[in-house]
Amino acid sequence: MSVDDKAHDECGVVAINNGDAPQSTDAARAAFYALFSLQHRGQESAGIASADGRRILVRKGLGLVSGAFSEDDIESLTGSVAIGHTRYSTTGETSVRNAQPFYVETMHGPLALAHNGNLINAAELRRGLLERGVGLSSSSDTEVMVMMLAAAQGADWPERIASCMRSWKGAFSFVVLTKDAAYAARDPWGFRPLCAARLPDGGSAAASESCALRTLGCDSPADVEPGRIVELGPDGPVARGGVDAAVRRASCIFEYVYFSRPDSVWNGVQVHEARRRFGAALAREAPAEADVVIAVPDSSISAAIGYSQASGLPYDEGFAKNRYIGRTFIQPTQALRDQGVALKFNAMPGTVRGRRVVVVDDSIVRGTTTGPLVRLLRDAGATSVHVRIACPPIRHPCYMGVDMGGSGGLIARRLSIEGIRESVGADSLSYLSLDGMMLAMEKAGYGGNGFCMACFSGDYPLDIGGVADKNGFEVV
Amino acid sequence: MSVDDKAHDECGVVAINNGDAPQSTDAARAAFYALFSLQHRGQESAGIASADGRRILVRKGLGLVSGAFSEDDIESLTGSVAIGHTRYSTTGETSVRNAQPFYVETMHGPLALAHNGNLINAAELRRGLLERGVGLSSSSDTEVMVMMLAAAQGADWPERIASCMRSWKGAFSFVVLTKDAAYAARDPWGFRPLCAARLPDGGSAAASESCALRTLGCDSPADVEPGRIVELGPDGPVARGGVDAAVRRASCIFEYVYFSRPDSVWNGVQVHEARRRFGAALAREAPAEADVVIAVPDSSISAAIGYSQASGLPYDEGFAKNRYIGRTFIQPTQALRDQGVALKFNAMPGTVRGRRVVVVDDSIVRGTTTGPLVRLLRDAGATSVHVRIACPPIRHPCYMGVDMGGSGGLIARRLSIEGIRESVGADSLSYLSLDGMMLAMEKAGYGGNGFCMACFSGDYPLDIGGVADKNGFEVV
Amino acid sequence: MSVDDKAHDECGVVAINNGDAPQSTDAARAAFYALFSLQHRGQESAGIASADGRRILVRKGLGLVSGAFSEDDIESLTGSVAIGHTRYSTTGETSVRNAQPFYVETMHGPLALAHNGNLINAAELRRGLLERGVGLSSSSDTEVMVMMLAAAQGADWPERIASCMRSWKGAFSFVVLTKDAAYAARDPWGFRPLCAARLPDGGSAAASESCALRTLGCDSPADVEPGRIVELGPDGPVARGGVDAAVRRASCIFEYVYFSRPDSVWNGVQVHEARRRFGAALAREAPAEADVVIAVPDSSISAAIGYSQASGLPYDEGFAKNRYIGRTFIQPTQALRDQGVALKFNAMPGTVRGRRVVVVDDSIVRGTTTGPLVRLLRDAGATSVHVRIACPPIRHPCYMGVDMGGSGGLIARRLSIEGIRESVGADSLSYLSLDGMMLAMEKAGYGGNGFCMACFSGDYPLDIGGVADKNGFEVV
Amino acid sequence: MSVDDKAHDECGVVAINNGDAPQSTDAARAAFYALFSLQHRGQESAGIASADGRRILVRKGLGLVSGAFSEDDIESLTGSVAIGHTRYSTTGETSVRNAQPFYVETMHGPLALAHNGNLINAAELRRGLLERGVGLSSSSDTEVMVMMLAAAQGADWPERIASCMRSWKGAFSFVVLTKDAAYAARDPWGFRPLCAARLPDGGSAAASESCALRTLGCDSPADVEPGRIVELGPDGPVARGGVDAAVRRASCIFEYVYFSRPDSVWNGVQVHEARRRFGAALAREAPAEADVVIAVPDSSISAAIGYSQASGLPYDEGFAKNRYIGRTFIQPTQALRDQGVALKFNAMPGTVRGRRVVVVDDSIVRGTTTGPLVRLLRDAGATSVHVRIACPPIRHPCYMGVDMGGSGGLIARRLSIEGIRESVGADSLSYLSLDGMMLAMEKAGYGGNGFCMACFSGDYPLDIGGVADKNGFEVV
Repeated sequence: MSVDDKAHDECGVVAINNGDAPQSTDAARAAFYALFSLQHRGQESAGIASADGRRILVRKGLGLVSGAFSEDDIESLTGSVAIGHTRYSTTGETSVRNAQPFYVETMHGPLALAHNGNLINAAELRRGLLERGVGLSSSSDTEVMVMMLAAAQGADWPERIASCMRSWKGAFSFVVLTKDAAYAARDPWGFRPLCAARLPDGGSAAASESCALRTLGCDSPADVEPGRIVELGPDGPVARGGVDAAVRRASCIFEYVYFSRPDSVWNGVQVHEARRRFGAALAREAPAEADVVIAVPDSSISAAIGYSQASGLPYDEGFAKNRYIGRTFIQPTQALRDQGVALKFNAMPGTVRGRRVVVVDDSIVRGTTTGPLVRLLRDAGATSVHVRIACPPIRHPCYMGVDMGGSGGLIARRLSIEGIRESVGADSLSYLSLDGMMLAMEKAGYGGNGFCMACFSGDYPLDIGGVADKNGFEVV
Repeated sequence: MSVDDKAHDECGVVAINNGDAPQSTDAARAAFYALFSLQHRGQESAGIASADGRRILVRKGLGLVSGAFSEDDIESLTGSVAIGHTRYSTTGETSVRNAQPFYVETMHGPLALAHNGNLINAAELRRGLLERGVGLSSSSDTEVMVMMLAAAQGADWPERIASCMRSWKGAFSFVVLTKDAAYAARDPWGFRPLCAARLPDGGSAAASESCALRTLGCDSPADVEPGRIVELGPDGPVARGGVDAAVRRASCIFEYVYFSRPDSVWNGVQVHEARRRFGAALAREAPAEADVVIAVPDSSISAAIGYSQASGLPYDEGFAKNRYIGRTFIQPTQALRDQGVALKFNAMPGTVRGRRVVVVDDSIVRGTTTGPLVRLLRDAGATSVHVRIACPPIRHPCYMGVDMGGSGGLIARRLSIEGIRESVGADSLSYLSLDGMMLAMEKAGYGGNGFCMACFSGDYPLDIGGVADKNGFEVV
Repeated sequence: MSVDDKAHDECGVVAINNGDAPQSTDAARAAFYALFSLQHRGQESAGIASADGRRILVRKGLGLVSGAFSEDDIESLTGSVAIGHTRYSTTGETSVRNAQPFYVETMHGPLALAHNGNLINAAELRRGLLERGVGLSSSSDTEVMVMMLAAAQGADWPERIASCMRSWKGAFSFVVLTKDAAYAARDPWGFRPLCAARLPDGGSAAASESCALRTLGCDSPADVEPGRIVELGPDGPVARGGVDAAVRRASCIFEYVYFSRPDSVWNGVQVHEARRRFGAALAREAPAEADVVIAVPDSSISAAIGYSQASGLPYDEGFAKNRYIGRTFIQPTQALRDQGVALKFNAMPGTVRGRRVVVVDDSIVRGTTTGPLVRLLRDAGATSVHVRIACPPIRHPCYMGVDMGGSGGLIARRLSIEGIRESVGADSLSYLSLDGMMLAMEKAGYGGNGFCMACFSGDYPLDIGGVADKNGFEVV
Repeated sequence: MSVDDKAHDECGVVAINNGDAPQSTDAARAAFYALFSLQHRGQESAGIASADGRRILVRKGLGLVSGAFSEDDIESLTGSVAIGHTRYSTTGETSVRNAQPFYVETMHGPLALAHNGNLINAAELRRGLLERGVGLSSSSDTEVMVMMLAAAQGADWPERIASCMRSWKGAFSFVVLTKDAAYAARDPWGFRPLCAARLPDGGSAAASESCALRTLGCDSPADVEPGRIVELGPDGPVARGGVDAAVRRASCIFEYVYFSRPDSVWNGVQVHEARRRFGAALAREAPAEADVVIAVPDSSISAAIGYSQASGLPYDEGFAKNRYIGRTFIQPTQALRDQGVALKFNAMPGTVRGRRVVVVDDSIVRGTTTGPLVRLLRDAGATSVHVRIACPPIRHPCYMGVDMGGSGGLIARRLSIEGIRESVGADSLSYLSLDGMMLAMEKAGYGGNGFCMACFSGDYPLDIGGVADKNGFEVV
């Protein structure tokens, strides 16, 4: 899946307890660097909250983590516990107002929360709050979660958090900060990743992906179990109750396909290894008469290497990618527009001229960039172009926090595979089978209890009738 | 060469004549997109100047090209000719004031200039101007060039440009805009790349690298010959005189090693192909008993692929790279500092655990990141680490526009190869030989007339005695 | 009272219904210009909300009204009803987050509120909300008001507003926006001004001061009665219930002394006229052997003119004032610091040299600038300086929305009048008596039902025991 | 003259030598505060340059002085000498690029210059520079001055400055900074004010107006004589040569009418005193049957007080002025537009209702606001309105640095006085006579040697034939 045709995950979260004195800002600093490593999960805004035993302090900013905070911001975030968030917005509106963590004062003291996922019963929960006379200042699930926590029953925060988790349906990996503690918790189905570890110099940390904990020097991050609440203790993560894990587990397969960073490990599987195995399985399922294997950089490189290794065809770089793409509002001329993806990709004639090329992509969502990429390869002299997609066709929208832009835009819903091949102008086009993908995960060492593969199969782990209405999708 | 240990080139330039009506802004728009493709040559500021037959208009901004200009900026840049510049500053001071193009009014009308390179006789030229009673408002070579053009003799601009080129010594690929024409010219030694082509819909374009012209849809960009002045005509580039090419040509070899984008072609050689051949030659010169070949992403990938292909060892991804690194001013804690490069790179255990690893890097300048990278690999379980550098040792500073930070910082000047190996903690470490590199260039199809390889050999194509003094280097 | 020694009012509010089509932005535009005229009531942030029958849209910005909104902001604020707010912060923290209007979604639809005043039972009301399980994201009274409205009982918004007003104690002039209506309401004691009028081309408007309605072209703004809720109807303001006015009315006398713009009319009295009469009464109560009467510009000019007229002494300008004072963070040197107020004021030797000078100030709060001003006059050659203050000594803090900086800072609480005279170095110093002030108000045509003069008398119209605790004041 | 109808002066300048150690930033700090007091002479940009014996450092910013510099800016401006500039742009383009001081390196070392005035032979001087082969990067007179200084002959800077002054024709009060000295100089005709004084703690300062030197604590600022160069010495200002003063002196009378701050003293006359005398003379020349005298605030207050004193009619405030007007780009609706000046002024009914009003204005340039102001008074109930202008009719454009918008816009050039009266809707309208004005200046203690009153008389002290062409005016 290339840049124009991307699905978006909502957010990365982190939580830190570095066991320091309350006037230290090292917890916030560690949260900053952990967010840095989760930047691929959201580039629109970032926020950090810290607590010093008395107060919660919050700083948020727009754009990349690196630019969202000044040294003064970090210096103001005193406390031994902190949480952080980096956000991709699915709403189109980019403003600090929507940035997380979300902060409120409650009868039990100050509270901040940051969240990755999507509640499918959010509309119903909102209605409940409004009818209880609570005013809501945003349309975000996170405010709903915070307001429910503010009214929750329970002797302490873990009890109150667990009590709310019983009402929440959907994907939610979240972190909570109180005036003197930080917690991380995960929905009972285990949709989104979340892991925790002891920090090398004492304290503990949790993050959406293990790569962030590795950046902090943690040796062996462990997954937070579905349904579990973990307190980030001064001597390491401590289980603090939660809810029963669901019978049917539902790790999002798309984290392996596209979202997670290749060096992250989840359910015992390193993401790069999963992708490499997807590519290898694809080589066996859909071989090609070809001279070279190339990737659509950067997310498909692992799968292309796997394809190369399994097929014996040499791996080479077939596209140069302009990695400096920032936000631009300059409208291209029609002539430039016609060149399509040329601003982001350029084919390398030395690699493809006079050759039969296998181009591996991790996935196709809307299918808008595959055609132009095939054209770039042909213009550069490829004699044939074989498109290989390292996952099954995506035919169903996600209701668990991945923005695929509505089912209407999914090319595999509108066209047959032959139709897609024709529309992108490839000599051949194949997808990895769902069985092949499962087998690859197994070989990669998967030790989990089940996936959410609804985007491929339409088989949703939770009843999503109401959500479909809310989002304007027909029920699938 | 990894991100912390980089050499910096100064700038990319573009020039456009799209043959449009003077009130169109498409020339500026094309310059914008061409600069976009030259972003790797400088990320500190960018500028575009356009001319409508009467006036020259200039807009400059800080940071990435994408953020430096608003649609309003572009809409104000009317005219059928335009030039642009993207800048890496070697001076430490980042301000719009230093951004190019440089603009002045002269007795022959308005003039703008943008420049990539370094004049080694700039100090002497400055003195000449000051003694002539000219006040200079910056310390840049570019102002010197512009002020000399303002006083130059000649019947037209090409004559005046040529007359100045006779006084200039060093590396200079530059573009000039007058009220109704755009020119591109290159020093007689041909240090820095510069190419030109006809635009697909008429008009012409010049740019530092061919990748920028490909982005604009040009089919076959051709190098601007050393010493030559090219006018960007409405029907294609037109030679407009210049100076005699030097007997000794001096294409910067480091453009192939690190600077240029892999899809660019210069002297008939695609950069990716050159690097792949460097890697292959290195495999032959310095084989290793190993299980896998990995690259230091992104600039070393081509060479690592070449090494893999020539050695028969499988290529895989051994590092995850955080590509979202922006400017941050947040100081890490000591604990984080000790982890060194962990923020930018993370080793992939799945690839390296229990394996003997060849890690290919394009070059080593100051040598600050190689050690930490080797350590990351060992921590991830590599049983042995063989460092292979796809160029010879860099022992001499560059005076032609590449900022290598002074000869004192060059690790290969201070240490023997064995000393470097020891200091970075590798099991073995080898550099590509200069002969091997030359042979690889030949095999890649090099059709030029000679290189500047002074950074490797110390053999400077021009007498740099005075410069050495100016820069505080001992003469080498 | 001069600039360094000022008391601060919290905010100005406006509400508009211009009867236009919902897609018009003229209501927001009118709100913008009305806020412009209330700029003296707060310069820290400004906000406007509009409603188009379906949604409420909000835009806020920092600083002066003129800079807080772009044309794009206004163009996005469609709807025939709008409210606006300009804010002075007493908390020290300046951020858009604290800017009003405050917006929430409620079970009865979207709601926005902007407020001028202070609830003395806010702490208790907060507690009630928190105990009801409502999370509060700020420490502002306004959020408390909005959250109470979100849960209020009643068949329609006027009923719900009235029901809340029964629980609120203190000063509150506020405006409310729903998806299709705008309301303005005032506390039963009538602490802060609020007036409404028919717009010249139809529709209606309400604002904190009549000067804002005059700017919109309204002929005869009328006070909103204490306790009354007014709907801004398409054909003019319409009474929509409310609560009974208090028996003891409490118009803030300090609005006449300092806050309100001289051209505003409240309780039938034009503010300039009130001040002129204060000055005249002062001349009678405290005549001086002098040659000239001068004012501390700008707020004391009316009183100084009144003193001049009643005393027969000529009025002249004795100080030049630098009116371009913005926010500066440049620290002066000690030498400059010693010159005190010289940056803002400079004495005019031509006016005061060799003369006996009466200098009229509207009030003294902390007394920090009076001394330096007297010194400036002496340095410029005044032979004697007679300070005349056009209100009684301020000895008691305000709990109704005026920031006087705590009772500890009130100079008249610490020192006798003779002590103040001595400390400021005047030849004589007199205050206007409370009786004289009341008589002057009567002569000016006052038709109201009572003042809050607690800052002079300590006689608070409401029991402020709890507030005193909250603010750390001793009960007075 | 009210805000919409204003003439603009170009700029204020300051120069400081505080005799401190070169690493101190107090000279820059003093320059900052002096500029603060000259803010009325230009609000578009500000700049300060300091010199520490070796280098010149420059910082510039847009907008008010208070916002243009951060504490970091000032902290970077080390050195014992400094100059500063605040600018009003007559060109419409607002950018830091055009802000002064202008800096260049010359063969005699670094040089910075800031300038108030206008060279009428600038076009000819530019031509000379261009023909000498100097490129010019702006259209400002200041760059011309700097480039001429860079090439000037002479043994030291005072000689070189004097040599240039011989070529310059027009109004120029300027300050020059070298690496170790600061100078202030004034054109031989003495068009614009410039004064200098010893600083209270040693060192010296020069500024456009004495009010700035008073702010710095200077006791008795003295005018810099026409043609004179003054060095700001460590023990006070020292004469350093210059050129012969012109036989015909030409102090700009409009500085007294409108530009200068009322507390400034020039040619021995305090500006407030001059204006008060203008008003008094006007009362004698043009009495009115009236009940009250009011001013158009703020620039006309002095004259209105003078009119009141001489006529015996009481002075009162007739207009409230919104002093918070910043830059706004919000377009008013047509209804608001029709109300004209209502955003800036509001009449005070209490003052004018049922009364015959004399409204004093300092001047009328284009005459666009007088009519609306008269209408505001009538709407507020004035029974008759007598307009009195405290200077003669302005019928001729200024070529010496005052932007009056071109002679075509001058209402007194197009209409007779009776015509103006009719067009503004006044019951009577009178101007002060030129003789009356001269007599008033004499009474005020004027000790100078002649005025430029060309805007009233058309009698220009210098031949302005060429300028007229350049500016598109007919020669008058």
